[in-house]
Amino acid sequence: MPLPVWMRLINIVADKSTRPKMKTYLDCIPCFMRQALDAARNYTTDEAFHAQVMSEVTGLINSIDLNKFYDSPVLTGSKIHKCVKELAGNNDPYSDIKKQQNDSAISVSEHVRRVISESSNRISTAIRFAIAGNHIDLGAFSKVSENEILDEILKAEKVEISGELLKTADEISKASDVLYLLDNAGEIVFDRLLIEAIGPEKVTAVVRGGPIINDATMKDAQYCGLTDICSVIENGSEAPGTVLDMCSPHFRDLFEKSTYIIAKGQGNFESLNDEHFNGVFLFKVKCDIAAQISGLKKGQYAVLPQRKETDS
Amino acid sequence: MPLPVWMRLINIVADKSTRPKMKTYLDCIPCFMRQALDAARNYTTDEAFHAQVMSEVTGLINSIDLNKFYDSPVLTGSKIHKCVKELAGNNDPYSDIKKQQNDSAISVSEHVRRVISESSNRISTAIRFAIAGNHIDLGAFSKVSENEILDEILKAEKVEISGELLKTADEISKASDVLYLLDNAGEIVFDRLLIEAIGPEKVTAVVRGGPIINDATMKDAQYCGLTDICSVIENGSEAPGTVLDMCSPHFRDLFEKSTYIIAKGQGNFESLNDEHFNGVFLFKVKCDIAAQISGLKKGQYAVLPQRKETDS
Repeated sequence: MPLPVWMRLINIVADKSTRPKMKTYLDCIPCFMRQALDAARNYTTDEAFHAQVMSEVTGLINSIDLNKFYDSPVLTGSKIHKCVKELAGNNDPYSDIKKQQNDSAISVSEHVRRVISESSNRISTAIRFAIAGNHIDLGAFSKVSENEILDEILKAEKVEISGELLKTADEISKASDVLYLLDNAGEIVFDRLLIEAIGPEKVTAVVRGGPIINDATMKDAQYCGLTDICSVIENGSEAPGTVLDMCSPHFRDLFEKSTYIIAKGQGNFESLNDEHFNGVFLFKVKCDIAAQISGLKKGQYAVLPQRKETDS
Repeated sequence: MPLPVWMRLINIVADKSTRPKMKTYLDCIPCFMRQALDAARNYTTDEAFHAQVMSEVTGLINSIDLNKFYDSPVLTGSKIHKCVKELAGNNDPYSDIKKQQNDSAISVSEHVRRVISESSNRISTAIRFAIAGNHIDLGAFSKVSENEILDEILKAEKVEISGELLKTADEISKASDVLYLLDNAGEIVFDRLLIEAIGPEKVTAVVRGGPIINDATMKDAQYCGLTDICSVIENGSEAPGTVLDMCSPHFRDLFEKSTYIIAKGQGNFESLNDEHFNGVFLFKVKCDIAAQISGLKKGQYAVLPQRKETDS
């Protein structure tokens, strides 16, 4: 009988060389279990497979010493989803859903582009829509319907922003170069509009190194035309965030040298919160742990500047 | 080193003699994990204990063959909470919360009693408030604030009922005897008002055989004055519902002989849905699985008649 998948994966989980500073909370465990079940169901309707996934993922979590659960939620989540993907023969369970989400976002993008172009501060208005797009997160939610996406976009112009929106827009406009860490499929359509407002010539956009949940990959960037307007690179990792130790040397080099970094989405916030760079986190707060760490409330739009230690 | 608690409990879980007909869904697993963490945190602020609980409960679930997960959610839940209680030295982690919930409900009960007494159909109006009280469920929710209880009670008179409210009220008024299966602390204050409307002399109210989550025990029935107005008995089991095979012979005998049974709350619905008796389920639908099985939507008030096979 072959070893269960989690037994092979646990060695990776235990590797402290890839350990970022933000820990996984016990509250994340029920959420991981729900994410694993969602992913299994997206892959197939076979209930025996769903049960196998839940059993493997429970085994994986049970094998971790929860008193020393120092890995970031993003790193732990990447192991959970790697487990599901291995069981599914390395297919991408979210492939069809990501296409639907890209299409839903594209269907409203002309309207949003017009609103941005007619606004008095294009970058700050585009930031609002980019954060609204961060609602399209299948790590946080089991489903995001097309109606939900439209509702979120319609309220984006008026929603209260937690943070320094105008100051951030001003900083971005003055930055000589911007590294833009993308988050999810669908969402990247609105990121494209923000990149258009910033000036695509000074932006390098970054996608994940491979499929994980509904996170944007190079395929999504191509589908949504991001590759037509700016430089797009992969970060070399399949984590649902940016765990620097798991990323490619090329990406880490860019991360180190960039003048200004936009870290988009809750996954990038969770994985880069303890890192020092000049830039900003833009995301919608979608769970109690992100709320606790950011000091904001669930549902709020976050514009949280980040600084290099030497600047603070 | 002693055996982990879950290793001793798994034999009970595997005992098919106590197996009701409704199965635990894979969706229940994330919910059980959340419930276990809630219970651990209610017991102590010691994070090492929380981690121990999550580890034991994950071990318990991992030891189950999820392809043969035929136990009802109530039975599986009772094993999970038994695990937490054993780790906590058999203390009742919800003791203080239950007192607060009883007090919150008592604080509005005079107002509700007046509304019921002035209504044209006292039993049907009292049923509305009794279902509203079923919102006070710490199996379904991590917290239920006093404001939430008040909001639920204020809307109870107008909320749409899914089922035959007036016909049910008429049946109850005509029944010679009523077995009233109670659910949660706080909620039982509103059950008391329904029992007053029915006529306490023909009612036998039933509490759990011991503390489990925030389910009502004899102590709560005494605190809320139920024991002053009608006969109250324990069902002999600590499951958060009514798993007949786990209940005392005395209770099972009463269950068999009663003319009419009111099965209150989602836990009693989950555990008695496949049993045949003349009576009604009264509950608020609080999770996707209960919605799926009842054919209703989350948040709806359910009045679902149940019949003995011979009557259908």
